[in-house]
Amino acid sequence: MTDIRQLALQCRDAAQAVAALSTDARNAMLLAMADALEADAPAILAANAGDLQAAREKGVAAAMLDRLRLDDSRLSGIASALREVAALPDPVGQITRRETRPNGIEVERVRTPLGVVAMIYEARPNVTADAAALCLKAGNGVILRGGSEAIRSNLAITAALQRALEAAGVPAAALTLVEDLRRETMLELLQLTDIVDLAIPRGGEGLIRFVAEHARVPVIKHYKGVCHLFVDADADQDLALRLLVDGKVSRPSACNALETLLVHADIADAFLPRAADAMRAHGVELRGDAATQAIVPDVVPATEEDYDAEYLDLVIAVRVVDSLDAAIAHIRRHGSDHTEVIATRDEASAAKFVQALRSAVVMVNASSRFSDGGELGLGAEIGISTTRLHSYGPMGLEALTVERFVVRGAGQTRNLHG
Amino acid sequence: MTDIRQLALQCRDAAQAVAALSTDARNAMLLAMADALEADAPAILAANAGDLQAAREKGVAAAMLDRLRLDDSRLSGIASALREVAALPDPVGQITRRETRPNGIEVERVRTPLGVVAMIYEARPNVTADAAALCLKAGNGVILRGGSEAIRSNLAITAALQRALEAAGVPAAALTLVEDLRRETMLELLQLTDIVDLAIPRGGEGLIRFVAEHARVPVIKHYKGVCHLFVDADADQDLALRLLVDGKVSRPSACNALETLLVHADIADAFLPRAADAMRAHGVELRGDAATQAIVPDVVPATEEDYDAEYLDLVIAVRVVDSLDAAIAHIRRHGSDHTEVIATRDEASAAKFVQALRSAVVMVNASSRFSDGGELGLGAEIGISTTRLHSYGPMGLEALTVERFVVRGAGQTRNLHG
Repeated sequence: MTDIRQLALQCRDAAQAVAALSTDARNAMLLAMADALEADAPAILAANAGDLQAAREKGVAAAMLDRLRLDDSRLSGIASALREVAALPDPVGQITRRETRPNGIEVERVRTPLGVVAMIYEARPNVTADAAALCLKAGNGVILRGGSEAIRSNLAITAALQRALEAAGVPAAALTLVEDLRRETMLELLQLTDIVDLAIPRGGEGLIRFVAEHARVPVIKHYKGVCHLFVDADADQDLALRLLVDGKVSRPSACNALETLLVHADIADAFLPRAADAMRAHGVELRGDAATQAIVPDVVPATEEDYDAEYLDLVIAVRVVDSLDAAIAHIRRHGSDHTEVIATRDEASAAKFVQALRSAVVMVNASSRFSDGGELGLGAEIGISTTRLHSYGPMGLEALTVERFVVRGAGQTRNLHG
Repeated sequence: MTDIRQLALQCRDAAQAVAALSTDARNAMLLAMADALEADAPAILAANAGDLQAAREKGVAAAMLDRLRLDDSRLSGIASALREVAALPDPVGQITRRETRPNGIEVERVRTPLGVVAMIYEARPNVTADAAALCLKAGNGVILRGGSEAIRSNLAITAALQRALEAAGVPAAALTLVEDLRRETMLELLQLTDIVDLAIPRGGEGLIRFVAEHARVPVIKHYKGVCHLFVDADADQDLALRLLVDGKVSRPSACNALETLLVHADIADAFLPRAADAMRAHGVELRGDAATQAIVPDVVPATEEDYDAEYLDLVIAVRVVDSLDAAIAHIRRHGSDHTEVIATRDEASAAKFVQALRSAVVMVNASSRFSDGGELGLGAEIGISTTRLHSYGPMGLEALTVERFVVRGAGQTRNLHG
C-alpha cells in the first residue's frame, strides 16, 4: 500500500529546493527537462505504444486513443512547450506593490510559490509534462495523478523529467507521479490539508465533480463552459456571423466553444436566416425556441435542457430575446460563468452586458475562442477556473503563486513608546 | 425550520443590486448605515443588555462578557469604522492590467465582487457591522452567522443596517443574519457550493476547525499565530528588546503577538539576561530550553509542546539556536505560517530569513504587531489568512473581490480566416 502522505511530505520538502533556485537555475532546469524528453523519445514512445495496445484491448473509443497517442511530432511539441515555459517571466519574488507607511516601515507584497499542487487528470500524457513545467517554474512541488490508460507513458515522461531535476540539485520528489491509481489513494491525497495547497482537476465533468465533492484541500476547477453569443439589435451582422462560426465550428470540443446563440428580436428576421445558413453549411444542428422556428424552417425545437447543455459538438441552441435585459437574464440562469460574448455597436449595451454578467471572461465583439491563457496573454495555461476565488478564468503562472508580505523596519514598534 | 438555501439565494440575488451601485451610491449607503447605527443606539444597547443578562445567567466568563458588551463609546467606534470603510478606495471595477494583444483585442483584468460571503463568528457584535460594511463595500452579499450569546445585539444592529440598504434601493437580503443558530443549519450553509463563494470563520480555533472540516464552500482562515522573534548574532540588542516587549506585552491576546523567542548562541550570554529582565518586569513567564536555563536562573523548563503553543497570555517560550539555519528549521517545524520577525544588522541573514520562510508576513527589524491589515496599509481587515491561496496574511477589501477578464475587439476570430 502506497503511503501517499509520505510521498506528499517528500514532495513538500523537495519543493523548498525548487523555490530556492535562482530564476536562471530554474529556467535551466526546465530547458534540461525539454532536452531529457527528446533524449528519451524512444523509451517514451515505446511506453506509449504499450498504453495504446492495452487501451485497444480494452476497447477504448477512438477519441480517447487519439488523446492518448504520442508520436515524434507530438513529443517535440511537448518539449517546445517546456522551452516556452522556461522563457516566460519568473513570477517568484515579483514585487507587486511597495509602500512606506507613515511610521517608516516598508511594506512589500511579494509573489511566493503556493507550495504543493496536486494535478488530477485523465488520459492526455502531455498534461504530465505541461503541468510539471508550470508548477516547477512557479517554485512549487507537483503531485501528478493521471489516468490509468496513460500510466506507462506518464512513468516514462516522469523518469526523463526527474533526471533533469536531479541534475539541477532538486530532489526528484518535487515532481511526484502517483503510481497507485486506486480511488482510495486519490481520496487520501485530497484530504492532506496540511501538505497539499491546491488541487486542480482536469478532464471530464465526472472527474471534476468527484474531486470537488471529496477534496478537503482547496480545489480550483470549472465544470463546463456553456458559452453564449448575444447578437444585439444593432450588431454588425457580418461581424456577428464571424464570431458565431469561429465560436461554434473552429473547435467544438473546447470549453470556450459557443453553445447558445441569443438574438435580439429586432434583428432576428434579418440575422437568423443568415446564421442558420452559415451553421448548416458547417454541419451544425440548430435547436431553437418558437420564435426561431417561426423565422427559420426546420429548426429542431429546443427544450429547457438544451439551454443548459455543453454540447461539445456541432449543435447550437438558439433563442430570440426581446431585449438586452432578457439576454442577461437568460445567461444568468443558464450560464456556467465561463465566457460570454456580445456583438453590438452600442457602447451602452456593451457596458451593461459587461457589468451585469459576472462570468470569468466577457467579450465585446471578439470570439469566445480567445478565452484561453495563451490568447489572453498569460503565456501558458494550467487550467480554467470558474471558482470565484484566487483565479477566475484562464489560470497562468501567476495563479500558481500567492502574494505575501515582507516588511523592513528600523526597530519600529506598534504600542511601545520610547 | 429555516430554509437556509432560500435565504442564501435571496442574498445572492440581492448582491447583484449591491454590485450594480455606483461607487458614490455604495459609499453613501455605508455612511447611511453608520448613521442608522447611531440613530438606533437606544434599541441596540437595550438588546445588548438583554444579551449580557442572559450571558450572566448562564455564568459566562468575564472575558466573554467584555467581548459581548456594547456601550455608547463602542457603538460610536463601530459607526466610525463604517465611515472609514466608506472612505476607502472602491476595489470594484478597478482595472489591474490592460494589454492589447498582437491581433488587436484589448484584454483587461477587472476586479469584480466574489458574490456571497458567509461570515461565521462568535460573541463580538462589532463583527456584525464590520463584516457587513467590508463585504458590501466590495459589492458582495453577506450572510452573517454569529454566536448565540450576541443574537439580540446582532438582530438590532442588522435591523438598523438593513434600513440603510433599503433606502439605497438594495434588498435587505444583501445583508442576511441567520437567526436559526442550530449547528445543522450552519452545516447546510457551508454546503451551498452553488451559492456561497467564500466562508470566513473568525473566533477560537475550535470554531475555525469545525468550519474548515465541514465546509464544502471555499474557506479562508487561520487557526493560530505562533509568531517567532529570532535575535541574530549581530542584532542591535536595544532594538531586539523593543521588538520583544512590543511583540509579547502590548496585546498578548492578539494572534500577531510573539509566542517564541529564538536567540543566536553567539549573542545569548549578552542578550538573554536583558530579555529575561524585561519580560519579568512586564510579568511574563519564560519557558526555556537547557541552554536558556544555563544562562537565566529560574527559567521554567520548556517542553516540545511549548514551542507549538499559542499562549495568548503573558508566557513566552525561549530557545537558543546555533545558527540562522537552526532558527529557520525551528520555525518551519513549529510555525503556523502567520508572522515571523528577525532582528539583525546583517543583510544577508535578513535576505535568507525572508527567502527561506514561507510565512504570510516576514518582518525584518519591525514588530510582529504590525501584522495587521490597517498597519500594513490595507485600510481595513476582514480576517487573516494562513491558507496559501487567494489571500495570504491580513485580508483587506481587495481580497473580497476577484479579477476577471474583459475583452474588447473589432470582430477578431481565432481560427476563422477571411
